[in-house]
Amino acid sequence: MADFLWKKTDVPVDEKIMAFMAGQDVVLDRQLFVYDLQASAAHVKGLESIEILSPEEAGKLLGALTDLEDKFISGAFTLDDRFEDGHSAIESYLIEQLGELGKRVHTGRSRNDQVLVATRLLLRHRLEELQEQCLATARLCIERARATANIPMPGYTHLQRAVVSSVGMWFAAVAESFIDNAQLARDTRNWINANPLGTAAGFGVNLPLDRELTTRELGFSRMQVNPIYAQNSRGKFEIQGLSAFAQALQDVRRFAWDISLFSTSEFNFVKLPDRFTTGSSIMPNKRNPDLVELLRGAYPCVEAAIIELQSLLSLSSGYHRDLQNTKPPLLRGLEQGRAVMDIFPDLVGSLEFNEQALENAIEPAMHATDRAMELAAAGLPFRDAYRTVMNEMPELAGREASQSLDARVSPGACANLMLDELSRRLEQLQD
Amino acid sequence: MADFLWKKTDVPVDEKIMAFMAGQDVVLDRQLFVYDLQASAAHVKGLESIEILSPEEAGKLLGALTDLEDKFISGAFTLDDRFEDGHSAIESYLIEQLGELGKRVHTGRSRNDQVLVATRLLLRHRLEELQEQCLATARLCIERARATANIPMPGYTHLQRAVVSSVGMWFAAVAESFIDNAQLARDTRNWINANPLGTAAGFGVNLPLDRELTTRELGFSRMQVNPIYAQNSRGKFEIQGLSAFAQALQDVRRFAWDISLFSTSEFNFVKLPDRFTTGSSIMPNKRNPDLVELLRGAYPCVEAAIIELQSLLSLSSGYHRDLQNTKPPLLRGLEQGRAVMDIFPDLVGSLEFNEQALENAIEPAMHATDRAMELAAAGLPFRDAYRTVMNEMPELAGREASQSLDARVSPGACANLMLDELSRRLEQLQD
Amino acid sequence: MADFLWKKTDVPVDEKIMAFMAGQDVVLDRQLFVYDLQASAAHVKGLESIEILSPEEAGKLLGALTDLEDKFISGAFTLDDRFEDGHSAIESYLIEQLGELGKRVHTGRSRNDQVLVATRLLLRHRLEELQEQCLATARLCIERARATANIPMPGYTHLQRAVVSSVGMWFAAVAESFIDNAQLARDTRNWINANPLGTAAGFGVNLPLDRELTTRELGFSRMQVNPIYAQNSRGKFEIQGLSAFAQALQDVRRFAWDISLFSTSEFNFVKLPDRFTTGSSIMPNKRNPDLVELLRGAYPCVEAAIIELQSLLSLSSGYHRDLQNTKPPLLRGLEQGRAVMDIFPDLVGSLEFNEQALENAIEPAMHATDRAMELAAAGLPFRDAYRTVMNEMPELAGREASQSLDARVSPGACANLMLDELSRRLEQLQD
Amino acid sequence: MADFLWKKTDVPVDEKIMAFMAGQDVVLDRQLFVYDLQASAAHVKGLESIEILSPEEAGKLLGALTDLEDKFISGAFTLDDRFEDGHSAIESYLIEQLGELGKRVHTGRSRNDQVLVATRLLLRHRLEELQEQCLATARLCIERARATANIPMPGYTHLQRAVVSSVGMWFAAVAESFIDNAQLARDTRNWINANPLGTAAGFGVNLPLDRELTTRELGFSRMQVNPIYAQNSRGKFEIQGLSAFAQALQDVRRFAWDISLFSTSEFNFVKLPDRFTTGSSIMPNKRNPDLVELLRGAYPCVEAAIIELQSLLSLSSGYHRDLQNTKPPLLRGLEQGRAVMDIFPDLVGSLEFNEQALENAIEPAMHATDRAMELAAAGLPFRDAYRTVMNEMPELAGREASQSLDARVSPGACANLMLDELSRRLEQLQD
Repeated sequence: MADFLWKKTDVPVDEKIMAFMAGQDVVLDRQLFVYDLQASAAHVKGLESIEILSPEEAGKLLGALTDLEDKFISGAFTLDDRFEDGHSAIESYLIEQLGELGKRVHTGRSRNDQVLVATRLLLRHRLEELQEQCLATARLCIERARATANIPMPGYTHLQRAVVSSVGMWFAAVAESFIDNAQLARDTRNWINANPLGTAAGFGVNLPLDRELTTRELGFSRMQVNPIYAQNSRGKFEIQGLSAFAQALQDVRRFAWDISLFSTSEFNFVKLPDRFTTGSSIMPNKRNPDLVELLRGAYPCVEAAIIELQSLLSLSSGYHRDLQNTKPPLLRGLEQGRAVMDIFPDLVGSLEFNEQALENAIEPAMHATDRAMELAAAGLPFRDAYRTVMNEMPELAGREASQSLDARVSPGACANLMLDELSRRLEQLQD
Repeated sequence: MADFLWKKTDVPVDEKIMAFMAGQDVVLDRQLFVYDLQASAAHVKGLESIEILSPEEAGKLLGALTDLEDKFISGAFTLDDRFEDGHSAIESYLIEQLGELGKRVHTGRSRNDQVLVATRLLLRHRLEELQEQCLATARLCIERARATANIPMPGYTHLQRAVVSSVGMWFAAVAESFIDNAQLARDTRNWINANPLGTAAGFGVNLPLDRELTTRELGFSRMQVNPIYAQNSRGKFEIQGLSAFAQALQDVRRFAWDISLFSTSEFNFVKLPDRFTTGSSIMPNKRNPDLVELLRGAYPCVEAAIIELQSLLSLSSGYHRDLQNTKPPLLRGLEQGRAVMDIFPDLVGSLEFNEQALENAIEPAMHATDRAMELAAAGLPFRDAYRTVMNEMPELAGREASQSLDARVSPGACANLMLDELSRRLEQLQD
Repeated sequence: MADFLWKKTDVPVDEKIMAFMAGQDVVLDRQLFVYDLQASAAHVKGLESIEILSPEEAGKLLGALTDLEDKFISGAFTLDDRFEDGHSAIESYLIEQLGELGKRVHTGRSRNDQVLVATRLLLRHRLEELQEQCLATARLCIERARATANIPMPGYTHLQRAVVSSVGMWFAAVAESFIDNAQLARDTRNWINANPLGTAAGFGVNLPLDRELTTRELGFSRMQVNPIYAQNSRGKFEIQGLSAFAQALQDVRRFAWDISLFSTSEFNFVKLPDRFTTGSSIMPNKRNPDLVELLRGAYPCVEAAIIELQSLLSLSSGYHRDLQNTKPPLLRGLEQGRAVMDIFPDLVGSLEFNEQALENAIEPAMHATDRAMELAAAGLPFRDAYRTVMNEMPELAGREASQSLDARVSPGACANLMLDELSRRLEQLQD
Repeated sequence: MADFLWKKTDVPVDEKIMAFMAGQDVVLDRQLFVYDLQASAAHVKGLESIEILSPEEAGKLLGALTDLEDKFISGAFTLDDRFEDGHSAIESYLIEQLGELGKRVHTGRSRNDQVLVATRLLLRHRLEELQEQCLATARLCIERARATANIPMPGYTHLQRAVVSSVGMWFAAVAESFIDNAQLARDTRNWINANPLGTAAGFGVNLPLDRELTTRELGFSRMQVNPIYAQNSRGKFEIQGLSAFAQALQDVRRFAWDISLFSTSEFNFVKLPDRFTTGSSIMPNKRNPDLVELLRGAYPCVEAAIIELQSLLSLSSGYHRDLQNTKPPLLRGLEQGRAVMDIFPDLVGSLEFNEQALENAIEPAMHATDRAMELAAAGLPFRDAYRTVMNEMPELAGREASQSLDARVSPGACANLMLDELSRRLEQLQD
């Protein structure tokens, strides 16, 4: 059982209740710990700047913080339920190492702004990773689109064969969606990139904290000025961060749906590498696209994490302990998002298309729209062209798929995928 | 890395992908393991009944299953990532202990019906616990209502003081809500109490499995007849089970809101025991009602778990690997629900009411409705009585709170709480 | 602009704010109006029973309430924004018709218990309809299962062809799911069937209201005893009612997914009647399964309605105006549920299966599980049988689909659909 | 019953099914109609640019479109169920007015890109309004913060009195949150500001559509290049637009929670103008803060609208009719968001603070943190200072609230609200 900083000696502790209140908090804090240490170092520098700490004192504290980070990363220091939470662990360590001096690190701050700043730094980092992962995905899709631009593929609406399309146009769609997702990750990162450190328990302190310095030190683009707002943004920024992940995973879900269908015996458009499939415990004949299904089924975790946060936030201003429960959904959602986006490009890159099956799936009637448009371009009112074509379906049998692809010249369509434009946008989002 | 039952030797395994696909599955299976063992025993008896296994063979298998359960419970057997999942662990253990015979346990079943039946048994058990927890809460509230029936308390609408109410009526409200919650837990338990064992991978098998026997053995009230439906009910039954928990936790949330307000300095109606509060790391003066806030903030976990399941289930018939992702939200939601309901009665039982503060909060205007009703009962049209009272507010100052409580005779109200009726309903739900 | 019962003459009214506060309330009340009238009649009888109203007075009020119901149903009375809400409209009408007497109807009640009881009656009615709709669906599916029991169909797991299955087994799965849904509708109906009338604004009144009488009059199976609980159950019962609809619509969604896939050119298992399809505004060749897609896309409306209610209910005890916002999601969700379940049997009944395409889709490897099970039944350990079959796939080519169907004798499977058992359960749920 | 463009004469129409499929579509299209007309005009100019239409033809079509817009706005043209949807209504009108020429407007487009572009324009417009509404709110809050900077107010954590705060700091928190919300509205608007017109049914057309021209004409900042992606972004962009509204409404919810508490008799910090309150139908003494509660209860509508969209989007690529169901939640969420943000500043501006009650609520113990910080600044380790202060609580009685406010100099805190910095940021977001 951890020792509690705020503990009053005369109050008996109920183990069951303490366990319920602690929840998984200290274990979850492992994911925040390095960020908490970084922010603690910035706080020490800020205290030095306003002469609460001497340069020598600050130096010792910074040294001990660095040591702790090294030990944590190497595994020599374990964050576990010896401590109430990660914040307490830092303070304990500093006191153990530096005695009286260690006790001074908490001057001018509260666990409230500590957890805010650590969470903010984690979220920022994950959004930076997301931006990169989205760009990597998009880049790969552009390559694949270029290579597959001439492979015909049925274009579906309502899951019904509609018009001739191409594998390249399908890949280019994925590329553009992940360019947008990268932009969203970047915008969201910028939106949350505000420094809450120095707001203490939500009302600031009677010390002239050097918040400009900590803002710079931690790479924030602005100060989150108001201490009450800093508290009130708990959950708010997390929701928006997860929303950026949700957008990416939603596109993964749609992609996985496509592959799930394309890899059925009935469609048979795509072959998955064996390492992406598993067998059955009862059916010797099966190879199942498990990875694809798990990627499809990854979205609900993030969607639900957002709801969990939204539902928690029906509260008045200021800190409430309910907000501790923002951690599990946030960390769970981020981890799911990161894992999916880490694996997804591997799937995108390894799909093999069955060109023969794709070609077999092109039917004459899928040229009907092209034909109607030709008649319309030649002056027949479109509605009349439409009705005309409905009566001349058999005549479409002579058309080749490639003919349709070549004629589809509207910007973005098969004959004009505008991949260079997509590449240009992609590069603008690359730092 | 686990060995996979379905593995084909010529397929290379990608560690990263395997790790992603495994997720936390085997660790989560610890919560299902004893149920999987129970169902495995029932399956063995079923195979014996149709003479796939001899009595002697069945006896050996049952003995080994019991041993494994003992070892698991004592900690001598650890379910970890040496195994793909709990199901594989059971089979491995039986083979290790019994050689060829161990291999025969999987005859006529699939991991698909194994996980269904184990999950079903867990869910049934949790709902039985929930029913008991709700009844315990309700019983305690009836006792407290009886003891506090004469303590006046403002009745609020819109958080504005409205009429005179009593602590007893407030406790009786909680009692009745948890009687309903107990009934819902019972009904839901009955609804899901159908046996999926013997449906294999969703299509049955070419063996005359004795499903009547396994249904009886496992205490199910009916067979889940159709194998495809058994698969399709994955998630469906879990959602309804979690909905029963959500109803209980929703009432906990409302109760916690009341206490959160009542324990402010401004209301000051309730004192919490010290063991339910914590201090602040920065503010020496604080005692905070953390437990109450964590109980209030417990609901979103279950709400979100339901959404996560609902969102996963947009699928066609039959098993899809997406469904593996039903486990984490289910287990998370059930654990949160159980923990909350385990602690909640302790809070209910230990609240101390500040009678003086409650009395001070009763204002003369809170008798206005009583007065209007008196005029109406005497024959004045209610709308006229209403307007009359608006002009005679000062005259209400002479009324006592107790006078209002005593006069509130409509069934269920302060003078007629009908606690015996509530007790009667409660006892009907007690097995 | 409506006239407000509670209006104080000296308070200026801000039209924009009044409009915002009113929302769509009075229009939504049209769906509750007949129930409000029924409950008003019961309230009048209750007042007569305790001699607040004479038999003659009660008779006049009951007559006027019946007149109003007739006028409303015939369209001679329109509930619109001349009134603040439906409750006010009733009182206005009674005053208009009966003068002073009309003013007396509100004696001993509040709009709070009025809306509770009207909503409860509506919800009860919708759940009764749902039960019937589910039973009708199940009955139809049993018929179709009986007729199609011998038509082979691939059984899919992971959307991959797994084993031989039958159209009959697929229909029987739908039947069983809707039997369960009917039971849930019934249980939920019983759970919510408690009378809140007579709880006034949440604290009862100082009149000995005859709540037993109104409980009987309105067909409730029990009194909702506690007035505070009556208020606190606002939203709570609605959520559970919508959950019953959600379960049904979830099964509709899965069915629609199946049909959406089965009606692709690639699967080609099912033909939809033309009246269930539409064309495209641009593609002359298209016939799209729009109805199927709209049935699939109906679930989110109900799912979201539940979340909207859950999110609203983070409140302390007693009435809050936030609760007015429970109406739109409730009514929207119920309407969606009713409309879907009204149309769904028509789809179920009209599907035509393409037996040739189904047969073509049966591959030899789909007999592998049968073969492994045969070897296992003959004494080969299942794991060895499994590995043996993996090496003898070619030999499965000689098997017929019907052979597999006939051999699948485990209870519930193709050769033993247990349709009589399903019928028996169904009839038990039929009142 | 509308006439359908795609109708084949030999297919019987089932009225009930048609009604189900149509839903409220045409009525909802009223909100999209002017945007559809604008986009139609841009499409006509694009067709002129590629010489599908002559300048004269284009001129006639543009004239008719303008006429229709005028008639629609004036009420001379009603969009109702004479039409299948808004798109069909436009085409019908043009044909009615211009004969053959009218039929040509649909050349090169589909209802799929029509609805996409109209929805996009609506969403963009709403986000622009949201940005302005957030800025107006923030500006007002800065003003109020400036005027109330010296009014002490308890600062709460866990709803317990913690430290001395000020009304000004509280208003400044709201200001900063709405500056962030304005930025999010702007970023989201920019993110979705991409032109889908010219993507037809999701595969482009065999015409060299001038998409650069329509992009410019409609004020989009970029082309949404890929036609498949244009379809796949249906719902995706709507979710992100609603997320921006959700963030604003979440802050409204928290504000409303504060006011709901502050306006209780117990807190008594705030007086609401009478026009924001209502009375009760049964309790003559009540004035209720209904508007505040309805603002608090507005968030769930938007939250649920997002879930409804997220849940709908579990689909493969390309258009599916399920997507029609994205309209109701989108339009409902946007309308709720707009209405709330339209009224909210009125509430912010009209709150009157009860300075005496605020001052009475400041207790000596609320100076404890200040005192601990003073000791820490003087060199005592913070943890020792903290424990020291716990033993000298009585000595804090002599402190004034103003003393605490004046000393709270950390950036953003009471003595240094940095309102000029907030104003500077606000102005940067003002176009």
